[in-house]
Amino acid sequence: MTMTTKIPVGVLGATGTVGQRFVQLLADHPWFEVTAVTGSERTVGRPYGEGVQWKIEGEPPADIGELIVQPTTTDLALEGKPPLVFSALPTELAREVEPQFAAAGFAVFTNASPFRLTPDVPLLIPEVNPDHLGLVETQRAKRGWPGFIVANANCSTTSAILPLKIWQDAFGLEAALMVTLQAISGAGYPGVASLDIMDNVIPHIGGEDGKLESEPKKLLGKFANGQVDWADIKLSAQANRVPVVDGHLASVSVKLGRSASAAEGIAALEEWQPDTVYRELPSGLARPLRYQPAPDRPQPRLDRDAGAGLAWTVGKVRPCDVLDLRFLALAHNTLRGAASGSILNAELAVVMDYIATF
Amino acid sequence: MTMTTKIPVGVLGATGTVGQRFVQLLADHPWFEVTAVTGSERTVGRPYGEGVQWKIEGEPPADIGELIVQPTTTDLALEGKPPLVFSALPTELAREVEPQFAAAGFAVFTNASPFRLTPDVPLLIPEVNPDHLGLVETQRAKRGWPGFIVANANCSTTSAILPLKIWQDAFGLEAALMVTLQAISGAGYPGVASLDIMDNVIPHIGGEDGKLESEPKKLLGKFANGQVDWADIKLSAQANRVPVVDGHLASVSVKLGRSASAAEGIAALEEWQPDTVYRELPSGLARPLRYQPAPDRPQPRLDRDAGAGLAWTVGKVRPCDVLDLRFLALAHNTLRGAASGSILNAELAVVMDYIATF
Amino acid sequence: MTMTTKIPVGVLGATGTVGQRFVQLLADHPWFEVTAVTGSERTVGRPYGEGVQWKIEGEPPADIGELIVQPTTTDLALEGKPPLVFSALPTELAREVEPQFAAAGFAVFTNASPFRLTPDVPLLIPEVNPDHLGLVETQRAKRGWPGFIVANANCSTTSAILPLKIWQDAFGLEAALMVTLQAISGAGYPGVASLDIMDNVIPHIGGEDGKLESEPKKLLGKFANGQVDWADIKLSAQANRVPVVDGHLASVSVKLGRSASAAEGIAALEEWQPDTVYRELPSGLARPLRYQPAPDRPQPRLDRDAGAGLAWTVGKVRPCDVLDLRFLALAHNTLRGAASGSILNAELAVVMDYIATF
Amino acid sequence: MTMTTKIPVGVLGATGTVGQRFVQLLADHPWFEVTAVTGSERTVGRPYGEGVQWKIEGEPPADIGELIVQPTTTDLALEGKPPLVFSALPTELAREVEPQFAAAGFAVFTNASPFRLTPDVPLLIPEVNPDHLGLVETQRAKRGWPGFIVANANCSTTSAILPLKIWQDAFGLEAALMVTLQAISGAGYPGVASLDIMDNVIPHIGGEDGKLESEPKKLLGKFANGQVDWADIKLSAQANRVPVVDGHLASVSVKLGRSASAAEGIAALEEWQPDTVYRELPSGLARPLRYQPAPDRPQPRLDRDAGAGLAWTVGKVRPCDVLDLRFLALAHNTLRGAASGSILNAELAVVMDYIATF
Repeated sequence: MTMTTKIPVGVLGATGTVGQRFVQLLADHPWFEVTAVTGSERTVGRPYGEGVQWKIEGEPPADIGELIVQPTTTDLALEGKPPLVFSALPTELAREVEPQFAAAGFAVFTNASPFRLTPDVPLLIPEVNPDHLGLVETQRAKRGWPGFIVANANCSTTSAILPLKIWQDAFGLEAALMVTLQAISGAGYPGVASLDIMDNVIPHIGGEDGKLESEPKKLLGKFANGQVDWADIKLSAQANRVPVVDGHLASVSVKLGRSASAAEGIAALEEWQPDTVYRELPSGLARPLRYQPAPDRPQPRLDRDAGAGLAWTVGKVRPCDVLDLRFLALAHNTLRGAASGSILNAELAVVMDYIATF
Repeated sequence: MTMTTKIPVGVLGATGTVGQRFVQLLADHPWFEVTAVTGSERTVGRPYGEGVQWKIEGEPPADIGELIVQPTTTDLALEGKPPLVFSALPTELAREVEPQFAAAGFAVFTNASPFRLTPDVPLLIPEVNPDHLGLVETQRAKRGWPGFIVANANCSTTSAILPLKIWQDAFGLEAALMVTLQAISGAGYPGVASLDIMDNVIPHIGGEDGKLESEPKKLLGKFANGQVDWADIKLSAQANRVPVVDGHLASVSVKLGRSASAAEGIAALEEWQPDTVYRELPSGLARPLRYQPAPDRPQPRLDRDAGAGLAWTVGKVRPCDVLDLRFLALAHNTLRGAASGSILNAELAVVMDYIATF
Repeated sequence: MTMTTKIPVGVLGATGTVGQRFVQLLADHPWFEVTAVTGSERTVGRPYGEGVQWKIEGEPPADIGELIVQPTTTDLALEGKPPLVFSALPTELAREVEPQFAAAGFAVFTNASPFRLTPDVPLLIPEVNPDHLGLVETQRAKRGWPGFIVANANCSTTSAILPLKIWQDAFGLEAALMVTLQAISGAGYPGVASLDIMDNVIPHIGGEDGKLESEPKKLLGKFANGQVDWADIKLSAQANRVPVVDGHLASVSVKLGRSASAAEGIAALEEWQPDTVYRELPSGLARPLRYQPAPDRPQPRLDRDAGAGLAWTVGKVRPCDVLDLRFLALAHNTLRGAASGSILNAELAVVMDYIATF
Repeated sequence: MTMTTKIPVGVLGATGTVGQRFVQLLADHPWFEVTAVTGSERTVGRPYGEGVQWKIEGEPPADIGELIVQPTTTDLALEGKPPLVFSALPTELAREVEPQFAAAGFAVFTNASPFRLTPDVPLLIPEVNPDHLGLVETQRAKRGWPGFIVANANCSTTSAILPLKIWQDAFGLEAALMVTLQAISGAGYPGVASLDIMDNVIPHIGGEDGKLESEPKKLLGKFANGQVDWADIKLSAQANRVPVVDGHLASVSVKLGRSASAAEGIAALEEWQPDTVYRELPSGLARPLRYQPAPDRPQPRLDRDAGAGLAWTVGKVRPCDVLDLRFLALAHNTLRGAASGSILNAELAVVMDYIATF
């Protein structure tokens, strides 16, 4: 798929850390061009490059840096059509304004949590459940919106979801016990106080256990007749914050629908191929999942940047004497689990004609 | 119990990090007095205070610092009787010489791993299974040793074992799934390279998963007729190294013998009292287990030093949708899980007349 | 000096991290007894133990935990007299209310910065300039206050000041170039964001370079005729935040009044004795300064707790080819450089009869 | 300059961490192609990709991974001529074999320290003293070698040397006082034990103070008549290890030949241009030095990767009341200060015809 002209896009909440990631990643995107950014009252009216407190590596892209920060309203000026926005808004603001943007005709690809479990909003990961994008039609029909909302999953959910999906398809999946070791960048900025996390672990992330115990049921659910039936899986999770900058690691034990050896489990992971439509996404990888046979992998610092931060690294598949199999999975929380994931969702929507047709 | 004169003790492998802890903890012990230290070839013949590379806080105790380091042989000069030694030897050396010391009449309280699962060697934690000390008689009878060996448990096993024991007694215990977040000090010195662990997690500690999946079965086993029948519990474990100096945290899910609510689980922990004999141990605590109701506890840096590093801190008891209940437990790995634990074992042996009688 | 009854004291701003240190340190103080605590609006009226978010090791002392938090006004209820308060207030509030407390008759020992350089306020470190306490008379005479304010020095200034003082007395001191490596706890809570400091150094602490370049001139000044003449020393400083929990390290090069070898510099440090009055302070140490000859000391984690966190550790005295001599110095920033330092100041005031007489 | 065929090169000591960097950086180099790798006895005879314990991000390049590791001898098989090797050998081995390689006709670009201060060996940084490469002729004439040795500077020296050079040219330079905050990767692998550096600073790096106090004198020296006259500058340095993965930060105060304001100092840095020959180097940057005006920059994590790790970031130029001016400088220690620096040296040698002509 080749674009003759790029699709203009906006970034809502562009001055926060996730917003900065969107701006950074979209700076050289082959299909999208950032033509509008919104931010907090403090930054509105100033050039983005001046107003933003850049907290990630490198510097704000020069051209986006010259865009004047706008308030987060549907008056948002976007050159050209169709209008497509990425949302890095904080939870409560997202809950309020994202439906307004959808009602105003914008296709909203959001990293925020309020609508992830809403029945007619796709909770989408192109490697996992690309067909769930079909919920957009249900959503638009039901609400009468010209636009729509598509959500990505929580960064902790994301870290283990692809191997779970692969084994669900291969063996059936009845239960999963998850313990996550999550990076500080997942809490945004200023986020976690250094006095809390240095030489320490914080075994609690507000609301995260609940997300880990619900989002996978929707992601692994079946889309049919315009709706998603949640998967009938038992989930139990414990999220921990550890002194790591980026990269969420999950230690998972699963009960399968039928027994499978570790070798079968590994083979399923290695043989897996994404849906054919995924091959058309410009940010898509040749190998979205890497199996690392070394016994001490994956590790956040060594594996988080695999595939430009979009790959899952899985390791240490072995029998679990309590359930059936165990494994470790890792994904970059602010890339795969946040901004890059939403961009991939938008690419999928383009390929599936959800952008061109309204 | 009051001692009129202190019992002379030796420390085998006194120059390593665990050996240093023994020396530090025994410096002001009410019952024990260090009169002999052994070390590697490099340090033999030198005053301990000069030969040791002190790697823990503070400085070597002045009087022990003047002891001349001896080689690790049963010729070990100990003033007075009965001879009692604490072993902080590395695994292979412990395997070779600890039986020699027992055969030579020494009571060996070891932190090393080789004999932990040996049927006639007590794997002992006074708060958990004080009656297992009775295995000493079996051991001496079977081997014809005037002395004996008593082992403490691995530091990672230790972190969660007391709440498991309490629930086993209260509700029955069928299975436990454990994920540990372990401190770097558990690997000794130089141990973990900073390049490996900084801004990182290493999801592998050689042999540790196996220890976590076997030692609890012995610790929670039943002592009768001079032997320990291992508990019939299914175990599955994943040990992780995290960038924390001291303190092992375990995230555990359990299947109980009968259903229990989180409130019942917490009540069992809070109402638990150690065996009456424990009250006679000079290092014993009034409250060996603290239940922390705050949702973000226990934390290594805040809770590891509770009870002079001898207490367990337990928190976040809640239902597990896959098994029955979940909890978090934390113990100081080089104190509760190593040197202090062995000293408590020796105190128990004194109270139970295993020292006075040979 | 023996107290028949303890002196009742208050802690202003007792719920912050420095306030918590005051509370912790005063819990078992031989002379002082905390009978009043003040805090922010959120905590006023609640028992201290409930209102405080305890951020340091251990737990709030039981008896102080039952005190009801009061607002920070001079109506502060204190049982008994003389009224003495320790101030852990934030800068702007301290600037406003500390003079009110002094005017109302309280002896205010403050850790806050607003009055450190005020000419008639003693900037006091008992090991360095105990005679400066005499400024209290000037202050009370000038302002007509029944009470007074005594300030301690900034934690970064504190780390290197004692060796500077000793060399000033021994050799004269013309200039000092300082680079500090400061711990995160110096910034309070929440203070430094973990995303800013993990795997990083922040070479800037707002206002700290200026404090380092001015406070030593007053501390090393001469007290005569009721005033302090600042020392004529050139100072240049660069403060850095490093990923260390506690303990400020200073790397210092000095130009002396007369040339001195490294051996002479070390001898001066080792032979130094505090003023005789210091011996009467219950928190005073036998050796307030330790010289560590090992080439890799002092180190924050190994040396910060020396002397219950009240000692200076100095090392690596050697020639400086640009100026005259170099050295390293370390002090615990929240103990020696904050709460413990203020308590020592109050003890000195008691011994010097500044408390008993008003 | 365009290469029709790439120059075959070898990497000596390719399995260590610096050797791995050479391999990684040379994998896609426009002029050089790695055709031989040497390693320790353990790895000799095995494919590089199997023998190496890869410790840096990513994975060994596929094609270099297939090269069979050779012993480090001058029999080294290199396809084609001229032979050029990069040396990442440990100090003692480098001292022994690098002259053998030069004598055997190899151009040796070394990261090792033994010959840095040898009068006829260029200590070379293309942005600082490209003319010093002329020493090669002296070296070859004096020793009768067909090949030669060119050394790069120590990573800590490198961090501050470019701003020192620029000010030397602009204002004259009489003295520099340096305190460095150095990353753990500078110590190689396993290098610094995590127990030593976590929550800590180690104010000592063996031999580093001496390198910082000598190497700049040679680097800033004048090349004339086939020799380098060391600069007459007084230097004093204190090297510290801090818990940072990559990036050495230097805090420097200087005495200039003539007085200059901070504004003049900054202007000199911003106006500086590298030698014209530098423009021909394929790894050369458009802006090798970036001045960061923000008061809290440079920071290791935010600035180390600037210019693919080859740029210097300088900040906080301001008056020094003891000497003249202060500044902060940062460079990536394993890139700019090690492997990338040596590659740039080799590129300069190619451009200056030192490779083509022998």
